[in-house]
Amino acid sequence: MDSLYPAGSPGSLRAKTHRVIFLHDTPAGKAFDVALILAILLSVAAVMAESVHSIDAEFGTALRAAEWVVTVLFTVEYLLRLWSVRRPTAYAKSFFGLVDLFAVLPTWASLILPGGQVLAVIRILRVIRVFRILKLAQFVGEARLLGAAVRAARYKITVFLISVMSIVVIVGSMMYLVEGPTSGFTSIPRGVYWGIVTLTTVGYGDIAPATTMGQVLAALVMILGYGIIAVPTGIFTAELAHQSRIARPSLGRRECSDCGRNEPDPEAGFCRYCGTNLARPDE
Amino acid sequence: MDSLYPAGSPGSLRAKTHRVIFLHDTPAGKAFDVALILAILLSVAAVMAESVHSIDAEFGTALRAAEWVVTVLFTVEYLLRLWSVRRPTAYAKSFFGLVDLFAVLPTWASLILPGGQVLAVIRILRVIRVFRILKLAQFVGEARLLGAAVRAARYKITVFLISVMSIVVIVGSMMYLVEGPTSGFTSIPRGVYWGIVTLTTVGYGDIAPATTMGQVLAALVMILGYGIIAVPTGIFTAELAHQSRIARPSLGRRECSDCGRNEPDPEAGFCRYCGTNLARPDE
Amino acid sequence: MDSLYPAGSPGSLRAKTHRVIFLHDTPAGKAFDVALILAILLSVAAVMAESVHSIDAEFGTALRAAEWVVTVLFTVEYLLRLWSVRRPTAYAKSFFGLVDLFAVLPTWASLILPGGQVLAVIRILRVIRVFRILKLAQFVGEARLLGAAVRAARYKITVFLISVMSIVVIVGSMMYLVEGPTSGFTSIPRGVYWGIVTLTTVGYGDIAPATTMGQVLAALVMILGYGIIAVPTGIFTAELAHQSRIARPSLGRRECSDCGRNEPDPEAGFCRYCGTNLARPDE
Amino acid sequence: MDSLYPAGSPGSLRAKTHRVIFLHDTPAGKAFDVALILAILLSVAAVMAESVHSIDAEFGTALRAAEWVVTVLFTVEYLLRLWSVRRPTAYAKSFFGLVDLFAVLPTWASLILPGGQVLAVIRILRVIRVFRILKLAQFVGEARLLGAAVRAARYKITVFLISVMSIVVIVGSMMYLVEGPTSGFTSIPRGVYWGIVTLTTVGYGDIAPATTMGQVLAALVMILGYGIIAVPTGIFTAELAHQSRIARPSLGRRECSDCGRNEPDPEAGFCRYCGTNLARPDE
Repeated sequence: MDSLYPAGSPGSLRAKTHRVIFLHDTPAGKAFDVALILAILLSVAAVMAESVHSIDAEFGTALRAAEWVVTVLFTVEYLLRLWSVRRPTAYAKSFFGLVDLFAVLPTWASLILPGGQVLAVIRILRVIRVFRILKLAQFVGEARLLGAAVRAARYKITVFLISVMSIVVIVGSMMYLVEGPTSGFTSIPRGVYWGIVTLTTVGYGDIAPATTMGQVLAALVMILGYGIIAVPTGIFTAELAHQSRIARPSLGRRECSDCGRNEPDPEAGFCRYCGTNLARPDE
Repeated sequence: MDSLYPAGSPGSLRAKTHRVIFLHDTPAGKAFDVALILAILLSVAAVMAESVHSIDAEFGTALRAAEWVVTVLFTVEYLLRLWSVRRPTAYAKSFFGLVDLFAVLPTWASLILPGGQVLAVIRILRVIRVFRILKLAQFVGEARLLGAAVRAARYKITVFLISVMSIVVIVGSMMYLVEGPTSGFTSIPRGVYWGIVTLTTVGYGDIAPATTMGQVLAALVMILGYGIIAVPTGIFTAELAHQSRIARPSLGRRECSDCGRNEPDPEAGFCRYCGTNLARPDE
Repeated sequence: MDSLYPAGSPGSLRAKTHRVIFLHDTPAGKAFDVALILAILLSVAAVMAESVHSIDAEFGTALRAAEWVVTVLFTVEYLLRLWSVRRPTAYAKSFFGLVDLFAVLPTWASLILPGGQVLAVIRILRVIRVFRILKLAQFVGEARLLGAAVRAARYKITVFLISVMSIVVIVGSMMYLVEGPTSGFTSIPRGVYWGIVTLTTVGYGDIAPATTMGQVLAALVMILGYGIIAVPTGIFTAELAHQSRIARPSLGRRECSDCGRNEPDPEAGFCRYCGTNLARPDE
Repeated sequence: MDSLYPAGSPGSLRAKTHRVIFLHDTPAGKAFDVALILAILLSVAAVMAESVHSIDAEFGTALRAAEWVVTVLFTVEYLLRLWSVRRPTAYAKSFFGLVDLFAVLPTWASLILPGGQVLAVIRILRVIRVFRILKLAQFVGEARLLGAAVRAARYKITVFLISVMSIVVIVGSMMYLVEGPTSGFTSIPRGVYWGIVTLTTVGYGDIAPATTMGQVLAALVMILGYGIIAVPTGIFTAELAHQSRIARPSLGRRECSDCGRNEPDPEAGFCRYCGTNLARPDE
């Protein structure tokens, strides 16, 4: 996204439009970001409100009018993005390009197609557009750090997920054998569903063991679920602490002119290894 | 709060009153703190008890008498605070100043207004006054450390909250489509409510999916919720560990013979502040 | 407990008995520990089984017989402990001394008093005696480490608990106002109970909000509860990591004979700071 | 498993078969792994589908046919494993050898025995075979790291589990006394079951306290459960961070010019294994 360069020469209207819409470093660009976020939130709220019968009965006409206003605005925005970017097809095919398109398509499609409920609900995906806000300066580094930690932990997370799925399949099958259909365990998939509900400590209670054997097994699953939540937490925490350690000190860290070692403490006045004055290295 | 200086000259009654009420470093000040905490807890317990019909029927008169005693005491305390502080309006407008005012206002207001239930319940906000205890010596550092960790992690937490809200909106809408009103998903907002109940692993069970498709989706949300609890935990843990490392008076820390500052790194050979050789201070 | 010295001269029967019963460093002592743990677990299982009507109807006589066997054994053990320890009253007043006494008292008391259910259930406290196992070599260090981490974090935990209790009181009162008795919020204490059930993500579903306003408030409480679980986890993790760092390296750490620095890596053959051979310091 | 050497001379058909089936370092071996995982997942899905009445009624014949195809394939695979490995009995007695055998046994047994439901469900244990995937290169290190962290924390985890079980037994007994059979606490074991459901924050709601005293006790258990989840999380996180620090190929790590080993400490001046000066390797 950031690599999509503006179309037109610097200073031209297209370049200026690009700067406002795609970047966040000018007052106009920031105002545009805020307006966009507000429009997205209002539009999502409208879609949600429309699905409530009592609200729809009373304010239906206003909501549909608001929907068209938002759709026209988002369409203009989409066209301006296509126009102001150097490679429109690259933008159109990018993740946010598709999200921008799908934010307006359902409403236009409802003119032609007999507007189904599915079509209306798809508009809720506009909420994804809020993630553009994460491109703002304050969030870039933090979001990247979180992303890096997740990526670095992906194999550990896979090992954990395979283990959880296997436990849940085995436990769900055992409960199906032990409990049977009387207490809701009518099939292995339902047993597995119960296993997930229990292991993740959600515990709806729509299916619950009734036999002693089943309750003993359920108790084991609960303690297991309560305990192994430590695993994803531990994986992510260790990884995040490591990523932070890599990313953090670079801001204040200075290299000693004498021994070449890094001084991580930004308050230090002298190198802790050789005693060289860090502030005036020529001393 | 701590920056609110006493009114009157040192040694005067106003300065002494200020010391007892606002500070915690004299026996009288500590006794006042303990008495205040007890009064707050008793008063909150009384408000809670009053809302229980069976208790109110039997002890109603006693509870209302206790309420007036507490209100008069808190009012006297509030007036003393106003009187003993150098800038009364600054105190009155401060967070705790307002809390102190709202602790007594509802009871006095009930004399004029026909005392509604809302007015009575507002008194429960007195519980906030308990946080004055966090100004006591033992807690200051700890509370500040926790606060610093939360502040340092605010952008990461925002990224996390935006992600959670987006997931919940999308998942809630999908469940509304998949399940429909028969199993309680009567609107998108209800779907989102279910999404929050499930993702946070609360799992009331008042709304639960009934179709296979809905249960598969629910299982995914549960595993997601079970897994991503690692994110706030990881963020806060990494931040707190970092804050502690900065703040903790280390065991291996040595004091510099020259500048008197503590050197936390046990491997350091030279004071980082003045460059004195730590191993042979006589050098 | 460990400081309770044996009665009698070394080698005497009393000293030998003391060694077997109180210490864990002889084969006889270890065998005694294992037998004791088994007796405790069986006895607790028997108390639990006795409370189940169907089991009690069939095996009641056998369970009561087993109870008397265990009680006599535990009484003999208690008397031996009193006899073999140098200061019997110190032991009798110690935590485990009282636990040992209360493990046998209810059964003897049932001979005199008409045996109530309360008396029978008190016997379940025998389960506390299992913690004697934590005195075994492998567990001492680990249990101490966990204890040290909890102690070091006690002020932070208090800050957290005060915050949680305040949130729950305020939120519970708001729900009482918003929801009212129709959906189960009949009083503020019930609202607070609901608040705890929700904030801790337990989510029984016995009381659940029915109004839109109540569900919005509930959703906020859930997300808060889901998020702030990071706080105790972060506190404990940071503290435990710190305690481990202090405690861990001392086991394998060797001091360099030349530069005096500690080498934390047990696999290192040479000092990482000056290159001295750690295995043969005279080289 | 990896230590099971191939039968036959290198280059022979048996050695080649061994390489494909047991190892993952050739294209054929990787293709075999993928095919095996797919066959396992399909077979597990079939067992699950068979337990659903509506699916079984319609696709029963197809599912049973698929079952036989998979069984024959797994049997051939099992026999090839036995044939290609140098010590067949060692493999047959190994964990995965037994898992491989039990993956096919139930189906063959159903020819002789009147096929019970238990026999059919045992086939679900095939899901364990998926863990062979953890032998793939990317996962070996990660799975080993997680395993090492769990092993290193085993005594701490035991202390935690003993504490949790003791709390749950005591609390369950108290609830049995306080609540009695009217609200579902018909025996101590049911109280303990409720205790586990509540402490682990699962919260089915199938048994919930009805008296004030019981709800106060339940609230304490919830807050305790909410808080002490910090313990396993802290234990595992601290251990994993420690294991990672040992294992991670650091950015600043340098290779010793003399012995070729990596020195992870960026501050080290000398190789910890052979004492070579890392800064000036030509010395």
